Amino acid sequence: MLVIRQLFQLLTPVHGQLAHKLLYSMAEKTAGDLTGADPEIALAPYRTAVKQAGLRVQQAQMNAQTATGATKLDLQTEFTQCVSKLRAKQKELQEAELKMRPKQSHFDRSKLEQLLKRRFFYASSFPLYPSVAGLFDYGPMGCALKANLLSEWRRHFVLAEQMLEVDCTVLTPEPILRASGHVDKFTDYMVHDTVTGECFRADHLLEASLERVKADKKTTEGVKKRCDELLRQIDNLGKEELRDVIMEFNITSPSSGKPLSEPTEFNLMFPTSIGPSKQVSGYLRPETAQGIFVNFKRLLEFNGGKLPFAAAQIGQAFRNEISPGSGLLRVREFTLAEIEHFVDPTDKTHPKFLQIADTELSLFSGCSQMEGGSAQRVSIGEAVETGLVANQTLGYFMARIHLFLLKVGADSGRLRFRQHLNNEMAHYATDCWDAELLTSYGWIECVGCADRSCYDLNAHAIATKKIVSAKRPLPAPVFVESLDIIPNKQEIGKIFKSDSKVLLEHLNSLELCEMKQLEGALKNGPVTVTLKDLTFQLEASMVHFKSESKMVHHEEYTPGVIEPSFGIGRILYAILEHNFQGRKDDENRNWLSLPSCIAPCACSILPISSNEVFQNYIQQITSGLTDAGVTHKVDDSGGSIGRRYARTDEIAIPFGITIDFDTLKYDSVTMRERNSMKQVRIPLYQIPEVAAGLIAGRLNWAKVCEKYPMFTGQESSAAKDDDS
Amino acid sequence: MLVIRQLFQLLTPVHGQLAHKLLYSMAEKTAGDLTGADPEIALAPYRTAVKQAGLRVQQAQMNAQTATGATKLDLQTEFTQCVSKLRAKQKELQEAELKMRPKQSHFDRSKLEQLLKRRFFYASSFPLYPSVAGLFDYGPMGCALKANLLSEWRRHFVLAEQMLEVDCTVLTPEPILRASGHVDKFTDYMVHDTVTGECFRADHLLEASLERVKADKKTTEGVKKRCDELLRQIDNLGKEELRDVIMEFNITSPSSGKPLSEPTEFNLMFPTSIGPSKQVSGYLRPETAQGIFVNFKRLLEFNGGKLPFAAAQIGQAFRNEISPGSGLLRVREFTLAEIEHFVDPTDKTHPKFLQIADTELSLFSGCSQMEGGSAQRVSIGEAVETGLVANQTLGYFMARIHLFLLKVGADSGRLRFRQHLNNEMAHYATDCWDAELLTSYGWIECVGCADRSCYDLNAHAIATKKIVSAKRPLPAPVFVESLDIIPNKQEIGKIFKSDSKVLLEHLNSLELCEMKQLEGALKNGPVTVTLKDLTFQLEASMVHFKSESKMVHHEEYTPGVIEPSFGIGRILYAILEHNFQGRKDDENRNWLSLPSCIAPCACSILPISSNEVFQNYIQQITSGLTDAGVTHKVDDSGGSIGRRYARTDEIAIPFGITIDFDTLKYDSVTMRERNSMKQVRIPLYQIPEVAAGLIAGRLNWAKVCEKYPMFTGQESSAAKDDDS
Repeated sequence: MLVIRQLFQLLTPVHGQLAHKLLYSMAEKTAGDLTGADPEIALAPYRTAVKQAGLRVQQAQMNAQTATGATKLDLQTEFTQCVSKLRAKQKELQEAELKMRPKQSHFDRSKLEQLLKRRFFYASSFPLYPSVAGLFDYGPMGCALKANLLSEWRRHFVLAEQMLEVDCTVLTPEPILRASGHVDKFTDYMVHDTVTGECFRADHLLEASLERVKADKKTTEGVKKRCDELLRQIDNLGKEELRDVIMEFNITSPSSGKPLSEPTEFNLMFPTSIGPSKQVSGYLRPETAQGIFVNFKRLLEFNGGKLPFAAAQIGQAFRNEISPGSGLLRVREFTLAEIEHFVDPTDKTHPKFLQIADTELSLFSGCSQMEGGSAQRVSIGEAVETGLVANQTLGYFMARIHLFLLKVGADSGRLRFRQHLNNEMAHYATDCWDAELLTSYGWIECVGCADRSCYDLNAHAIATKKIVSAKRPLPAPVFVESLDIIPNKQEIGKIFKSDSKVLLEHLNSLELCEMKQLEGALKNGPVTVTLKDLTFQLEASMVHFKSESKMVHHEEYTPGVIEPSFGIGRILYAILEHNFQGRKDDENRNWLSLPSCIAPCACSILPISSNEVFQNYIQQITSGLTDAGVTHKVDDSGGSIGRRYARTDEIAIPFGITIDFDTLKYDSVTMRERNSMKQVRIPLYQIPEVAAGLIAGRLNWAKVCEKYPMFTGQESSAAKDDDS
Repeated sequence: MLVIRQLFQLLTPVHGQLAHKLLYSMAEKTAGDLTGADPEIALAPYRTAVKQAGLRVQQAQMNAQTATGATKLDLQTEFTQCVSKLRAKQKELQEAELKMRPKQSHFDRSKLEQLLKRRFFYASSFPLYPSVAGLFDYGPMGCALKANLLSEWRRHFVLAEQMLEVDCTVLTPEPILRASGHVDKFTDYMVHDTVTGECFRADHLLEASLERVKADKKTTEGVKKRCDELLRQIDNLGKEELRDVIMEFNITSPSSGKPLSEPTEFNLMFPTSIGPSKQVSGYLRPETAQGIFVNFKRLLEFNGGKLPFAAAQIGQAFRNEISPGSGLLRVREFTLAEIEHFVDPTDKTHPKFLQIADTELSLFSGCSQMEGGSAQRVSIGEAVETGLVANQTLGYFMARIHLFLLKVGADSGRLRFRQHLNNEMAHYATDCWDAELLTSYGWIECVGCADRSCYDLNAHAIATKKIVSAKRPLPAPVFVESLDIIPNKQEIGKIFKSDSKVLLEHLNSLELCEMKQLEGALKNGPVTVTLKDLTFQLEASMVHFKSESKMVHHEEYTPGVIEPSFGIGRILYAILEHNFQGRKDDENRNWLSLPSCIAPCACSILPISSNEVFQNYIQQITSGLTDAGVTHKVDDSGGSIGRRYARTDEIAIPFGITIDFDTLKYDSVTMRERNSMKQVRIPLYQIPEVAAGLIAGRLNWAKVCEKYPMFTGQESSAAKDDDS
């Protein structure tokens, strides 16, 4: 594997781009009926096909490496084609694997979407106006869910690791994003209608067109097969290949039928200009990371000059997608939470690695991907030890990401870490794993975790010609030689007059070795220097050399960076899918099983009827919960208590507090837990403490059930309760 | 006052713009030496001058109202000039008042700025690159402070009032901001160098130029006086007046000396375009409010159709300032926290008003501003009762804002609410009060609190031709008459042929009263209708009228909006100034007295020496505090404990936990409180609970001092402690 990694040289920048999306619908169409069969027998031919394709890639790679001249170019093209074919075979295998999974019987995406819209978790922005794709507003429930998710993130990462959180601007002047590579490389391929000018993302357009060709009854089996082959490679096609497909199928503009342009690169950043005279051109940041990199020096200083340390940032980022889609998965404005862990590149051990070494992760290694295998459960300790994961620090973060995702409600059976193959890895990354969550849209990249080596800090250092480094103590002090050149300005001026400036500038810019060379040469007589069409006859008397030697205790180095980067909207959508449930007795009664720590609202307060006598109690509980910092929602809308429980279950409220006629007698209320639907009876005054304890995790429901009496029905009145 | 309010018609839109900044330096230069004198005697002439100017405004206003024709224009100009003079006199009075205040003896802005930079609270963005004005990054301390401030805001407003929080996009298509008035009116005056093209904000440029003229030794006393007069009016000058001043003083470009252009309006929004073909032009939002307004219908539905309710939003907003400055006070990207409280405009009482009615606020009413008075302490109950504050809901929010600002550390002596005068009030606002905090830059608007009436929802309803309303039950059901017009298309077509379309469109667009008129007229014979140069002879047989009457139980209405809008960066800067302290024994030892609830970090952990034996204890405390959700910072850097306490005081850490040699013996540590510098000894295992209690406000320091023994020095070793 190592050999292949080093050899692969297709430098496709993929940092932060979309992962392999894989539509269930496509899987159904292409993978045939595999349910019921023994999984491994059914999958064997797919695995073999991947393995063979992988071997062909290796062979083509080696041929291309050893060839020279014109043959080399041909062999490189062949290699690229082999990689595309490998990808297609990998996709086929994945489709087959997905077919083998037990169906999420109750899951129906349209039902979830209806629920999310009806209860205003999120919806398209600017509802009164003509819609603009890829922009979403979070309503009260979505906004609270997102805020809780971020607050848990802060606790799990920033607080636990003493990270330095920063908050940088969205507006970013152009030079920063030029240095980072975004101005040149943050692009997608686009084609436009040569008559109307309408724009389309090339791969999406081809995908839709090929699907149409396939669906046409007149299409021959041979052409259908060719379409399938291309569809599986569509994510990996370059500019020329996209153009070839357009020509092969004579694809035209879907809206006008007119010819399409050649594919062109479209930069995905939103441009703007800063200041009144448009003197500073800039962009909305496409990621938050650059704000951290440019502040590295200040952060290092804040940390007392010590490494390693991590900085973190939560904030909005922007990508001008050509064709946004798939709900929250491909949008134009989104929230990122990013960590940049700065480390001495010669020592990537992590002091807390032992604490998580036994954590088992589902790892889908590059090797497995090449050989037709699947993701394997491996302890992160073993993965680092065997070299599968590049180092302890990268492994530590992968385990912490795994734990975080489970904590906020991801289903462990639908979570895996997929290693980037070298041809999809940004050229600066030495190892990169994506945490992917399986949704009805396929496996979705939700967190990227990359060892970016020293690329980012170096890029800014080169662009600004400033030193961006840290210091490490040397094992022993060393002597460092330095040489200064001191020009005799008077003499130079007398002889070279107005040309002196050019010579003086040249002398000041000499490197150590050049100075030494000059010093040696002048000992043998005058030296002729030619600069910008001017010739100078330099004599020994015109310059004086001063050499010095000093003891140095530290050496400077550029820190490496490990970057875990979280797409908050994607995580949010995936965990909504993972927590979308139906009740056993009624599959149509949908509810969300989100963990208490991120549920949009912690408690509902439900008077058993709209009787005026309950008003006082509602206010008492409300103000108690407010003081305890517990979010809550009063539902005094009438309707049966069972129907109201169902309404609160829909928005994932974990605890329901019901005020009934016994409350008037005993000053106690019932508390109902969403998942078990069990109820206990608790004294009114203890409610804030119990609720706060449950939400903060100081208490759990089992303990509450032990401490307080189970509730089955109130004495005081035979109130109707659909729920229990 | 009421009369004046109604009469004032200078519709300057000022919503969200900068308040009257007032430089201490200017006050010193112009107000003469007033310290030591009896304040009211010294201020009397200033008050009289304001009052006289106010009366002249009233007189001019009435003259202008009653005049007609050409005289009216002249009198309106005179009125405008009177208003400018009133403003100048008000400014003089304010300067004099500021001079009378006891000096904040220890306050030195440059020292605060140094501290904020050195400890990376915030600093200019993109430090490695050429700087761009008006962009700031928050470092670890500033970011934590801001996050805590926002979290307290959520608790104080969103949680306590069950507000519906939303999270809308920054990217905003143009039509929304055209409807809101921002595309046309969100502007500042700009002039540019006619040769180099360099741009300047007109009022700032004039201010600097006039100051230069004044400073010139050759300037006569008369001209200096004229400069002073203009400087006081500079905020209120219109396009023509700005041009006149440029000509009067022959002001040229400060960088090239070349002539300046006429002042032009510059829109302060950042433009961008959304999508690949630039088909959707948009802006970065200049405020978060519009996202709430366009979602009104969804929010009303979420709230079960019931009013009143409030929605809230925290987020970034953007203004392309022509010349940013004054640190965090005038920047190009900033965080807003806005509330839109929707209410039935016929009933602006507030159910919780009684709870805050006794809260005393410092109110600087419009009347006082006109009559040369000062801010007065008044209970909000009285203010609403007397009509000074327009209604209970507005008053309720003002009191809640007051309480919030004090909670997060504002000094009550440097907080006032200033009422907008009608000529500075946006034309849709019926009453507006700014919470202003006094800083070394003068009184700064930090929170706007406006009754915006139904303006915003109406604006979007008009722009989109959609109904944006709520329903209220009628006292009794009423019958509503409706009339439908049904054209006889066959007959019309036969007679008017291709012109029929124009006639049919016209008939369909008729209002109820027009239909009735037409119905009546047709009874008397044919009616002639002229449309777009076409004449139609309409006969009774060509149209049929159908009238209906139905019972209606509800009426629709457009809700009013009360809007409290918080500039988070400004509040943050002001409370940093208010909490910048020096120790009694050492004025140079600066520290920040920020309240625990918003301090960037809750606890420091300080081993008394770098001895290895303390490492275990550090880890034990760190993990306990992490589990309890308490932020903390380990300082094991060596240096005397006193010097390290001073370092943590600088970044406002309220509690310091010191591990010493007694810890090894007794498993206890000391806890030191920042303000009192007192220390107690607490068992190690109780630290997380005590610290969490102190930060959440469940415990206070006095109680901790009662419960635990006071600490004066450790037994086990005579550790040096500079601090106690």
